[in-house]
Amino acid sequence: MMGGIELEVVARVHGGRIENEDDRWGDVEATIVLESSFPETAFAGLEAFSHALIVFHFDLIDPETVVTGARRPRGRADWPEVGIFAQRGSPRPNRLGVTCVEILGVEGRTLRVRGLDAVEGTPVVDVKPVMRGFEPRGTIVEPDWATEIMKDYW
Amino acid sequence: MMGGIELEVVARVHGGRIENEDDRWGDVEATIVLESSFPETAFAGLEAFSHALIVFHFDLIDPETVVTGARRPRGRADWPEVGIFAQRGSPRPNRLGVTCVEILGVEGRTLRVRGLDAVEGTPVVDVKPVMRGFEPRGTIVEPDWATEIMKDYW
Repeated sequence: MMGGIELEVVARVHGGRIENEDDRWGDVEATIVLESSFPETAFAGLEAFSHALIVFHFDLIDPETVVTGARRPRGRADWPEVGIFAQRGSPRPNRLGVTCVEILGVEGRTLRVRGLDAVEGTPVVDVKPVMRGFEPRGTIVEPDWATEIMKDYW
Repeated sequence: MMGGIELEVVARVHGGRIENEDDRWGDVEATIVLESSFPETAFAGLEAFSHALIVFHFDLIDPETVVTGARRPRGRADWPEVGIFAQRGSPRPNRLGVTCVEILGVEGRTLRVRGLDAVEGTPVVDVKPVMRGFEPRGTIVEPDWATEIMKDYW
């Protein structure tokens, strides 16, 4: 019915880690720098929010490794095999990540954040402020493996 | 340094509203149906979660109307002009939406959800389970206009 969707890179991650790791992202600080085609007013007002969602592209993931069906999260034999859309692993169709970060500051075209699990150079395709009204309505329920996988993540 | 990023449509929204509206999305029920190129195991295990993030493309937004700098949310004169990445409006670069929905059920290639603010036919580019560990760390702070804009949204 229609072909693909073409996205542009709006910003890039600078600083932070240079290699992907499973855990302990909580204290990592990085900056998100707007591409030169965007005016710095694009980030204006973000400093009034405590948190932002960063939508980014896992560009270091080899497309050949992307899973379209089910797999065990992190390959752990003690966790169930679940669909790629029932987990947050990076070898996923379209290789998009969505992470909530703390906003440390905005200076012109640079957004400083803490807790972004994306490495140096990662292409960013959207930034959204976290609004209380967009948070989950009702209590969050999750399976045990999902609680366990996040134990040392931050 | 690099060109664009090409995404594929992984699923489509069926049911729900056929026209975009500003408010009262909370009770809208819809289904998200996997494209035929994906095995139904892609959704397996989502039923163990109460909520999912739906990443979709605002394909009805005319690219000519996309704002790259600042604007007043909903054009409201009583709200401040803020950058497009400091608000959640749809005429944004890459026209991506990220919404947290309630999971009602999974049947094969069909995910039934409540509270998705995307109309019939909308292309979906990712689905992620909501895990408590990916929720904002610390208290969410937002400006007054962001609280006000969500008053009748659900």
